[in-house]
Amino acid sequence: MRKPQQIAVLGVTGYTGFELARILLRHPVVKSPVFYVRDTQNKKCLAELFPQLRGVGEAPLRSLSVAEITSSNAGTAFLATPHEVSAEIAPALLEAGLRVIDLSGAFRFRSADTFTSWYKLPAPDKSSLSAGVYGLPELYAAQIATSPLVANPGCYATSVILALRPLADAGLIADGSGVVCDCKSGASGAGKDPRRDLHFVEVDENFKAYNLFSHRHTPEILEHTGLPEDRLVFSTHLLPLARGILSTIYVTLGSVYSAEAIETVFRKFYAGRPMVRIWPAGTLPELQHVAHTNFCDIGFSLDSSGKRLIVVSCLDNLGKGAAGQAVQNFNLMSGIEEQTALQ
Amino acid sequence: MRKPQQIAVLGVTGYTGFELARILLRHPVVKSPVFYVRDTQNKKCLAELFPQLRGVGEAPLRSLSVAEITSSNAGTAFLATPHEVSAEIAPALLEAGLRVIDLSGAFRFRSADTFTSWYKLPAPDKSSLSAGVYGLPELYAAQIATSPLVANPGCYATSVILALRPLADAGLIADGSGVVCDCKSGASGAGKDPRRDLHFVEVDENFKAYNLFSHRHTPEILEHTGLPEDRLVFSTHLLPLARGILSTIYVTLGSVYSAEAIETVFRKFYAGRPMVRIWPAGTLPELQHVAHTNFCDIGFSLDSSGKRLIVVSCLDNLGKGAAGQAVQNFNLMSGIEEQTALQ
Amino acid sequence: MRKPQQIAVLGVTGYTGFELARILLRHPVVKSPVFYVRDTQNKKCLAELFPQLRGVGEAPLRSLSVAEITSSNAGTAFLATPHEVSAEIAPALLEAGLRVIDLSGAFRFRSADTFTSWYKLPAPDKSSLSAGVYGLPELYAAQIATSPLVANPGCYATSVILALRPLADAGLIADGSGVVCDCKSGASGAGKDPRRDLHFVEVDENFKAYNLFSHRHTPEILEHTGLPEDRLVFSTHLLPLARGILSTIYVTLGSVYSAEAIETVFRKFYAGRPMVRIWPAGTLPELQHVAHTNFCDIGFSLDSSGKRLIVVSCLDNLGKGAAGQAVQNFNLMSGIEEQTALQ
Amino acid sequence: MRKPQQIAVLGVTGYTGFELARILLRHPVVKSPVFYVRDTQNKKCLAELFPQLRGVGEAPLRSLSVAEITSSNAGTAFLATPHEVSAEIAPALLEAGLRVIDLSGAFRFRSADTFTSWYKLPAPDKSSLSAGVYGLPELYAAQIATSPLVANPGCYATSVILALRPLADAGLIADGSGVVCDCKSGASGAGKDPRRDLHFVEVDENFKAYNLFSHRHTPEILEHTGLPEDRLVFSTHLLPLARGILSTIYVTLGSVYSAEAIETVFRKFYAGRPMVRIWPAGTLPELQHVAHTNFCDIGFSLDSSGKRLIVVSCLDNLGKGAAGQAVQNFNLMSGIEEQTALQ
Repeated sequence: MRKPQQIAVLGVTGYTGFELARILLRHPVVKSPVFYVRDTQNKKCLAELFPQLRGVGEAPLRSLSVAEITSSNAGTAFLATPHEVSAEIAPALLEAGLRVIDLSGAFRFRSADTFTSWYKLPAPDKSSLSAGVYGLPELYAAQIATSPLVANPGCYATSVILALRPLADAGLIADGSGVVCDCKSGASGAGKDPRRDLHFVEVDENFKAYNLFSHRHTPEILEHTGLPEDRLVFSTHLLPLARGILSTIYVTLGSVYSAEAIETVFRKFYAGRPMVRIWPAGTLPELQHVAHTNFCDIGFSLDSSGKRLIVVSCLDNLGKGAAGQAVQNFNLMSGIEEQTALQ
Repeated sequence: MRKPQQIAVLGVTGYTGFELARILLRHPVVKSPVFYVRDTQNKKCLAELFPQLRGVGEAPLRSLSVAEITSSNAGTAFLATPHEVSAEIAPALLEAGLRVIDLSGAFRFRSADTFTSWYKLPAPDKSSLSAGVYGLPELYAAQIATSPLVANPGCYATSVILALRPLADAGLIADGSGVVCDCKSGASGAGKDPRRDLHFVEVDENFKAYNLFSHRHTPEILEHTGLPEDRLVFSTHLLPLARGILSTIYVTLGSVYSAEAIETVFRKFYAGRPMVRIWPAGTLPELQHVAHTNFCDIGFSLDSSGKRLIVVSCLDNLGKGAAGQAVQNFNLMSGIEEQTALQ
Repeated sequence: MRKPQQIAVLGVTGYTGFELARILLRHPVVKSPVFYVRDTQNKKCLAELFPQLRGVGEAPLRSLSVAEITSSNAGTAFLATPHEVSAEIAPALLEAGLRVIDLSGAFRFRSADTFTSWYKLPAPDKSSLSAGVYGLPELYAAQIATSPLVANPGCYATSVILALRPLADAGLIADGSGVVCDCKSGASGAGKDPRRDLHFVEVDENFKAYNLFSHRHTPEILEHTGLPEDRLVFSTHLLPLARGILSTIYVTLGSVYSAEAIETVFRKFYAGRPMVRIWPAGTLPELQHVAHTNFCDIGFSLDSSGKRLIVVSCLDNLGKGAAGQAVQNFNLMSGIEEQTALQ
Repeated sequence: MRKPQQIAVLGVTGYTGFELARILLRHPVVKSPVFYVRDTQNKKCLAELFPQLRGVGEAPLRSLSVAEITSSNAGTAFLATPHEVSAEIAPALLEAGLRVIDLSGAFRFRSADTFTSWYKLPAPDKSSLSAGVYGLPELYAAQIATSPLVANPGCYATSVILALRPLADAGLIADGSGVVCDCKSGASGAGKDPRRDLHFVEVDENFKAYNLFSHRHTPEILEHTGLPEDRLVFSTHLLPLARGILSTIYVTLGSVYSAEAIETVFRKFYAGRPMVRIWPAGTLPELQHVAHTNFCDIGFSLDSSGKRLIVVSCLDNLGKGAAGQAVQNFNLMSGIEEQTALQ
């Protein structure tokens, strides 16, 4: 195991940041993490902000200061900050020689224009952008291992890309056919800020679709599945539960396949990849199987014609969909087992 | 208002039967309903079986006996019984001159073979079958009004057919294109019998797909939308909530349409139909909007190309999806306002 | 049935106001209700504000103006407004001859000092206060029938007072003994304003106590049970569900009683009172039994010594705990059956 | 750290057994655990029974056989079996020299009569009983460390005893006063067997009291707090959530105390005990703070008189209330840090 390194964690007040803190506090090669927030509320220690962490990690809490971080001994910075804050801060951290794992959308796209047109925010720094890699370990492990900047994927995007990429690479999807991705997420994916539509009474015993044809994770899915925009329909729904994304994905196959053949395509693609689990033909994963884990579980059902395929992909939006995946990237960057601290 | 009639309700122990009881107990033209169950547990009154009904309806509870029902003054019988029980009992009730509203799948299909092949149960009586009508009031009100036997539709089927039929009838669906219906239901749809997979802990904070390519409501959808089997994909999922179905339906249009045109198609189709509500373009219904009601709410989103349409249809699986719809059919059969006792 | 009257409903944007609207829209003696809100958001009709009401009530929505209300034909005004707004508005409405049903805490106490010390708000008008009656129909029906101003009780208070008053009046509570009221409420009781601690993720799969020894419903309970402050312990908890209050109340009896005797005390007290249901000895009510109803269900368990009694009292905090009870009061004030529109 | 030992885990199909498996699979001194169940369903590996464990632990699954266990190299057996099975099996395991941690009620009481009268089952073997210790580590760590048989406490009992024992030992409870323990548990505490009252629809949006004056955890609480039966009222309620117990405990103090004094009593009692966390005066723990942990969190509120105290105690019923506590006991028995594998 590599020797411990000091890390900085920025923006720990949201659900993703908190989950990240929980994982890093038990991570064997993380030494004395320091947590930075915009407003410390006069608290000096993470457990004062989150009393449920008492006895688990008495890590220091500091007011967010790029100068302080760059002059510290931190080797890696995790950014669980808003898109625009990540876009602003990352270049200085990179400049100072830190490696950066950014959980926002700021550096996820090959083109700054994609970001500006989908996020309606100023373009992030181009040289940082070109230094970055899309942090989906099952696809880009080698680049992640050596990159100074890793853009951690969106939660929905992770779930959809991991389901579709093996099929796309194997050429199974019928030419010109549409792919429908009907995705459902728990409420922690919507962030922690109080909003009328996230009030308990509004979500409890409710279910709804939202952001149809306009969700920001769309361009990530297009880029990493290779599907053109007019062949992808991606919809998102809000589930009355806290954690988890389940995507039901409808694919028309170009030829007739057996269930065994489909299963083999998935198994080969993810051979040696511990965090993606393929379910045997005829069985399907459920959200509970992946809640509080870093797994993405993938199962499927093939109709009797052998040409219509439904893939079910699920993960914990705070785990493999955000904080867990960030740590998986950190592990790869640190040259240690990728599932370290994730089981 | 027509003069009150006596009714018999068979099989009131499940969630649908209980909901039916609640509605019928407040129905203005229902006089002295009698409730029949297989096992009365020595109880003589419905409120003894369901203490939450105390003070609402002290209606009599009897052991299920076809002879007793046919010799009573009941004019209509509601069957909230299992498929095979309905199949067995309905002919005798019809023979005795009662009108029958059956909530099971026994009489839903034009062909007995469809029933036997999807339900793996003996075929229902053919003459009863030919006397019956599919009880979807928005499509078949005239036939329902005069039919001796009404086969109340499946909950998922109601939600999907009401969304697709206006588009199909107007010729909007692209020739040969596939239609994906991704449907999600609350747990009351799975029935009240104790099952390991319906234990609170198994459903709470969970979400899963089930019965892919094999759900029994498939043939209803095919028959009443006119889609051939190879163009329909119908999937079902279990939501961690008690009541409600939301179907997200993906349609490729044959030409370019405006949102206004789509909205007009729906509005015209359901003009004068109080129990289907069309949401204005750009807005979408949610499950909470229809829980504990007899409404089916339909909204949609059209992509910028004007050719890809997502329809969202939702209803309460115990309301418009079962008991409420049965009462709506009863109202039509009785010649009274179809929303009587349903608001 | 009395002839229909016009009513005004003020402050319909919260959960209680919305529930009130739903009941009043189906109330047989309510004619053309008008709904007033601080900010109409340029909407002219209630169903524009609450799309789930489309087809149910197309009642007009107006900007809150006391002058407009007093010059209208409204005979009764329901105030579902904040305490300070009710305190400010009620005198003018009373002055203009309207009868007022106020759902806030402003007029609940015999002494203005009680209000100011518990609510930290300016004292309400004294002459209004002296004209008012505490709107608990099972205790004060006669006064309510003729009063110009009815102060609708708090939700927790209703649940506790209805459970304790029969025991207190019958002299069953041991002299000097303490009474513990451990109460649990669903999240709709906390109001609709977005708050971090009411975010779905914070309430879901959670449970907590709050406001120990300081809840504002305490003085109502003291006044209407007659218990001195040092003998009552009243605690409140937040349940992960939308609607309902269940209070578990611990009483030490002054002598040995049988379960039959206890049941008789409750039954006699509530004879002829349709909205309180007493559960037979040995059975206990549950929240589901009363959700979406105006019932308060009361059950109890007596230990083998015959001296320690646990009373379980439950109701829907938006029903009998707020909007339903307000309509029950309106019914009494209108001289009609008290359960009108409440079943 | 002590050298790894082989263990046997009996009865892993329930919620407690599964949680135990999850913890033991990551336990650093547990070597090759073997899992025994009554019916292996022809499965050879734990992950075949629980597919969500794939990739986490491929531990062997065997048909329950005492002979096989006693002839294996297992040094410790965990019994997550029904009371009567534990009672029957434990003597043979002890006889063969294994140490036993039993999670049932069979060996929890000093007197076999207490067990038979509360559980209505045959008395467990007396010599085993006398060899056993009540496995509450914060009270009996020394005896646990050396005992051949540890009777893991009930979930409710753990929560109540940990809250009351410091007050009782310090003599703070007023002589002769009653103590009310109003306890609420999630549904996993009721076991995994399908039951009508545990169907999702029956628990969701519901809340109820059950087993008043008759819960089997009563005698544990009496024995380990020292309270006589007529001074304890212990009630239990079912929460609509999966995991967690919160107990609200009402105590009358013998003299006037300050909040600081109360806090000091708790802190001193649990000094050096990492799994009980005392919340500062004026703050209260919530269920979410302890879900998926082995902590018992204790907070309190003191009224202005300084004589009425409410203690709030919460824990995860599958963690500190069952499986986590069993592992904590195992750690003490193995001479390693008691929180090993529990953070």
